Amino acid sequence: MNAKNAAALDKDLMSAGAFSLDQLMELCGLSICQAVYRLHPPSKGNKVLVACGPGNNGGDGLVATRHLFHHGYQPTVYYPKKTSHELYQRLSTQLKNLDIPFTDDFESSLKTTNYVVDAIFGFSFSGEVRDPFRSVIAALETTKTPILAVDAPSSWNIEDGPPSSGPGAKYNPEALISLSAAKPLVNYFEGRHFIGGRFLPPSVAKQYDLDIPDYQGDEQVVETAPTGRKATSEKVLKMAERQDL
Amino acid sequence: MNAKNAAALDKDLMSAGAFSLDQLMELCGLSICQAVYRLHPPSKGNKVLVACGPGNNGGDGLVATRHLFHHGYQPTVYYPKKTSHELYQRLSTQLKNLDIPFTDDFESSLKTTNYVVDAIFGFSFSGEVRDPFRSVIAALETTKTPILAVDAPSSWNIEDGPPSSGPGAKYNPEALISLSAAKPLVNYFEGRHFIGGRFLPPSVAKQYDLDIPDYQGDEQVVETAPTGRKATSEKVLKMAERQDL
Repeated sequence: MNAKNAAALDKDLMSAGAFSLDQLMELCGLSICQAVYRLHPPSKGNKVLVACGPGNNGGDGLVATRHLFHHGYQPTVYYPKKTSHELYQRLSTQLKNLDIPFTDDFESSLKTTNYVVDAIFGFSFSGEVRDPFRSVIAALETTKTPILAVDAPSSWNIEDGPPSSGPGAKYNPEALISLSAAKPLVNYFEGRHFIGGRFLPPSVAKQYDLDIPDYQGDEQVVETAPTGRKATSEKVLKMAERQDL
Repeated sequence: MNAKNAAALDKDLMSAGAFSLDQLMELCGLSICQAVYRLHPPSKGNKVLVACGPGNNGGDGLVATRHLFHHGYQPTVYYPKKTSHELYQRLSTQLKNLDIPFTDDFESSLKTTNYVVDAIFGFSFSGEVRDPFRSVIAALETTKTPILAVDAPSSWNIEDGPPSSGPGAKYNPEALISLSAAKPLVNYFEGRHFIGGRFLPPSVAKQYDLDIPDYQGDEQVVETAPTGRKATSEKVLKMAERQDL
């Protein structure tokens, strides 16, 4: 689903769908937390740095941070561009009530964390990355610390994937979680891919021509088969193997 | 925690805690769904009848119903006393958008369901059960269909457990889920007991002298050791066994 449809889907969920942003964000944030848990359980190192942008992607990150705390992690939040929306203020207060540190120095925090969640930009991002996020994305691009990106590796174009130059051109996080539905950029993504947001009504899925993922048990996330160039090359490899037979 | 403290805890979570009712109910409803999943997975029969009262207990039930749908169940809702609160109207719309049937005839629906969730009255209940819930509780009291009660078996007194006579006096559901914290009535409860609501800030738990349950993995519910009279008799049995040795 492209960026326009993703925005329309969210709007439909909150108008005819009768969801509040509080509800959707709560479930999306929990999905992110569960993906982190699968990728990097707290026993492997419980420090998680969550980078939150100014929009809904950042809001999902703030909710995920709270859930990470309740799942045995010691999260730190980087949230440099705060919005005045009352929900975001409440999400921040909820984190402060848990004594979760807010850092202003992303790069220093990155050096000591075990895992990163990139909730800077989501499907509504387009154009140029501006400060302070330019240097943050440059740091994400070069770090060896594993990263889960939320809906999009930040700086990527929703349709066309990574930018051809500048910050993000070589950014390839370990994992990506698509909320509600995968966006076209997954075709350029080579890491592990999850879908979260177990709330999509079948009528809405039909309207937007989406498949509801095959969630297992009571899980809020599902890992999909590999996507992107790696998947394509794997397919080519399999075809080649078949021809060998 | 007694009824007064439970009400104060909710109030604190929504004032200083900065939670919205939407958020808390979303997580409580998901906890209820996960408890049903553990007790009675959809493979054992996926028809669940959810009885919702007019207050927050009923709201938790409405949210649980939506999650049950997304977890492979075919829920039916009994919700005879609708409130005008906009959240409850949205929760109802969300269920209607999933084509979940609302029944007016609890007793007929009870005959064909595989499982029941009792979300009629919670910790704020006291006094007399009035119609239409008198006959509903009488039906719950005699059915062989397993029931999960939310926060309290409906009609039970939060402090003193089952009423000495009238509807509910012999009501003993298969299971109980306590949201946030167990209420004193668990001392009278003999079924399986779960705690849900993985969002309690440690500072609030300390203020109310509550233990945060030892949630496992990324689960939203935890089953506790047996409570109530059965637990006591088990302890006596174990002591007797030890004396035999």
